[in-house]
Amino acid sequence: MVTMREVAERANVSIATVSFVINGTKRVAPQTRARIEAAIEELDYRRNVVARALASSRTRILALLHPDLEIRPNATVIQFVMSAAHGARERGYDLVLWPVNDDEQMSHLLAGGLVDGALLMEVQIRDSRVDRLIASRVPFALIGRTEDDDLPFVDIDFTATIDEAVGHLRSYGHQHIALVTQRTKAAPENEPGRIMRAESAYLHAMAALGRPPVVVTVEGTSAGGREAARTLHERFPGTTAVILLNEGASAGLVKGTRELGLTVPGDLSVISASTTRELGEMIEPSLTVMAAPAPELGRLAADALIDQLEGVQDAPPHILIPCTLVPGESVGSPRLPDETAKRATRNADGR
Amino acid sequence: MVTMREVAERANVSIATVSFVINGTKRVAPQTRARIEAAIEELDYRRNVVARALASSRTRILALLHPDLEIRPNATVIQFVMSAAHGARERGYDLVLWPVNDDEQMSHLLAGGLVDGALLMEVQIRDSRVDRLIASRVPFALIGRTEDDDLPFVDIDFTATIDEAVGHLRSYGHQHIALVTQRTKAAPENEPGRIMRAESAYLHAMAALGRPPVVVTVEGTSAGGREAARTLHERFPGTTAVILLNEGASAGLVKGTRELGLTVPGDLSVISASTTRELGEMIEPSLTVMAAPAPELGRLAADALIDQLEGVQDAPPHILIPCTLVPGESVGSPRLPDETAKRATRNADGR
Repeated sequence: MVTMREVAERANVSIATVSFVINGTKRVAPQTRARIEAAIEELDYRRNVVARALASSRTRILALLHPDLEIRPNATVIQFVMSAAHGARERGYDLVLWPVNDDEQMSHLLAGGLVDGALLMEVQIRDSRVDRLIASRVPFALIGRTEDDDLPFVDIDFTATIDEAVGHLRSYGHQHIALVTQRTKAAPENEPGRIMRAESAYLHAMAALGRPPVVVTVEGTSAGGREAARTLHERFPGTTAVILLNEGASAGLVKGTRELGLTVPGDLSVISASTTRELGEMIEPSLTVMAAPAPELGRLAADALIDQLEGVQDAPPHILIPCTLVPGESVGSPRLPDETAKRATRNADGR
Repeated sequence: MVTMREVAERANVSIATVSFVINGTKRVAPQTRARIEAAIEELDYRRNVVARALASSRTRILALLHPDLEIRPNATVIQFVMSAAHGARERGYDLVLWPVNDDEQMSHLLAGGLVDGALLMEVQIRDSRVDRLIASRVPFALIGRTEDDDLPFVDIDFTATIDEAVGHLRSYGHQHIALVTQRTKAAPENEPGRIMRAESAYLHAMAALGRPPVVVTVEGTSAGGREAARTLHERFPGTTAVILLNEGASAGLVKGTRELGLTVPGDLSVISASTTRELGEMIEPSLTVMAAPAPELGRLAADALIDQLEGVQDAPPHILIPCTLVPGESVGSPRLPDETAKRATRNADGR
C-alpha cells in the first residue's frame, strides 16, 4: 500500500504538505501542488483515502440526516444544508446527505460505518431518531432541540425571536397579536421543537400583555396562508397583527387578507419569523421578516460535531442564535376600532 | 477482519440478506434484521463498509459538485440536490455535497479517491470544470450541458420550454415579447448553457415571428427585476409580454411594473420559466410559470451516473425534459395600442 510518506518523498516535500493538498485543508503553492499531484498520479495513491480511513477507523465523512424534503423544501433548509457542507469542507470533512424516512432505515445507515458523525435536522420535542443516534454510538449534533437540553445542539433562539417580534408589534401599538404556525404530520406531543418553543414564548408574551392568545395552525402552503387569513377574519376579527412561524404560508396570508377586502399593513400587520430576506422581498408589500441565522447555524453545527470528533471540546455545545429583524412594509399602526367598522361598511357596499 | 460471511453465519442467514440490511437495498423482516444487527454488533463489523470499499476499490459514494451556493440559492437548486440524494440512496449509494469554488480545489477533491463518480451542477457552455472531470478519470454526469453534446448529461429542454412559452403568449395575441435573463459572473462566451440555449431558442422564435428580439439581462434579485421593468418601459415601450429566465427577479419585475403605474397582465403579461409552482403562487398576481423538472432530473442524473458505474448502459445518457406550463393569472391579451396611449395619459395625470 502506497503511503503518504512515499508521496512526500517522491515530491520532495513534507508529509504535512501532502496532507494539506489531499485534505484541501490549507493553500499550497501551485508548483508544489503540481509536484505532489504528479507523485500521487505516479504512485497511484488514488484509493488511499479509503485505506487511511480503514487504518485510523475514521472516514472523515459526516452525515446530514434529513426527512424526505424532495417535495416542498423551505427556503431556509437549503441554507442549512449548504452551509453545513461548507463548514465540513473547511475542516477537511465531507458531508453526505441522507434522506431518511423511518428510524429503522436510519439505524441501518449509521451501522454501516461510513460516517464518523451525524447532524440531524427537523428535530422534534420527543424524537425517536435521537434515541437511535444515541444507541448507534455515532457522535452527533442536532440542528434543533428535543426536550433534553443536555444533548449537543445548535438552534434558532425562538424565545428571543418571538419576544422581539412581539416587542416590534407592540412598539406600533398592537395588542391583539395572533400566531400562525405550521401543521405537521407529527403527533401534537411530538411536534418540531421550534413550534413548541415559539408557541410557548408567544403564550408567555400574551399573558404578560393580558391578552388572550390566538394560535392558528395551517399547512405551510399558499392555500394554508389563505385559510389562516379567513380563520382570523371570521373567528378572531379583533386581530390587528400576525406573527407567522410558517414560511410557506406567508404569501398566502397576505393574498388571502387582500381577497377579504382588507390591506396589509392597514388592517393587518404581518411579521414572518424564521425565514429569509429574499422571501420578504418577493411579497407585495415587502414583508417584515425575522431572518433565520441558517447560514451561520449550518456551519456551527458542522463545527460542533467536528469539535466532538477531534476531542476539542469539554462540554456538549449548546448554541442558540435568534433571528434578525429585517423591517419591510408589512407592519404599521393598528387601525382604530371605529375606522375598522367604517372600512368594513365600505367593503360591504361593494367597493 | 470480520467478513460479511461471518456475520451471516452468526445470524444464521444468507450473505445476501446481510448485504440487504447493510446497504439498505431491500426490506428484510424485522426479526431477521434484529438478528443481523445483533451479529454486526457482537462482531464489531462497524468499519467494514470502508474495508469492503478498499477491497473492491469502490466506495459507493458519489459527489455533487456545486458552486458556492450559500448566499442566495434558487428554489429549484434544492430540488435538484435532494432528489439526486434520494436517487443515489435508492440504489445503495451515498451522495456527498462538495462546494467547489475553483477548478484546482475540485481536482484535489477528485484525486482523493473518496468518490466513485461525480455530478456537476450549473454547467457552462465552455466549462473548465468539465475538462478537470475528464482529466480526473472519475466517471461523471452533468446536470446541464456544455457545447459538447456527447458527454453524459441530463438537462432541462430549454428550446422546447421557450417555444412553448412563446406559443402560449402568441395564443393570447402577443407579438412584442421580451426575454429577461440572469447576469452571471461568467464571461459572455462562458455563460451557463441554460441561458445560451434559451436565448438562442428565443431569437429563433422572434425571427419566425418577424419581430426584433429584446433581451434584458439583470441580477437574479428583486432589485434586478425592478431594473428590468424600468428598462423595458423606457427603452422598449412596445413590449406587451415578458418571458423570465431569471427566477430570482420574477417578483421584482412584477413589483417594478406596478410601481410604474402599469398592471400585470393588463399592460404586461409575464411567464417565469424554469422555476417552481410555489414561486408562482407566492407572487401577486399568481405567475404563470414553466415549472422546472428538477425533482425528476436530480434523480435521473444519479441514475445516469450509477448506470455508468455499474456498466448498465451502452451509450452516454442524454436526457432532456422540458418545463411544464402551469397557468397562473399573469398572462392576458395585449392591450391595444390606443388603449395603452390613453392609459399612459391617465397615469401622467396623476392617477
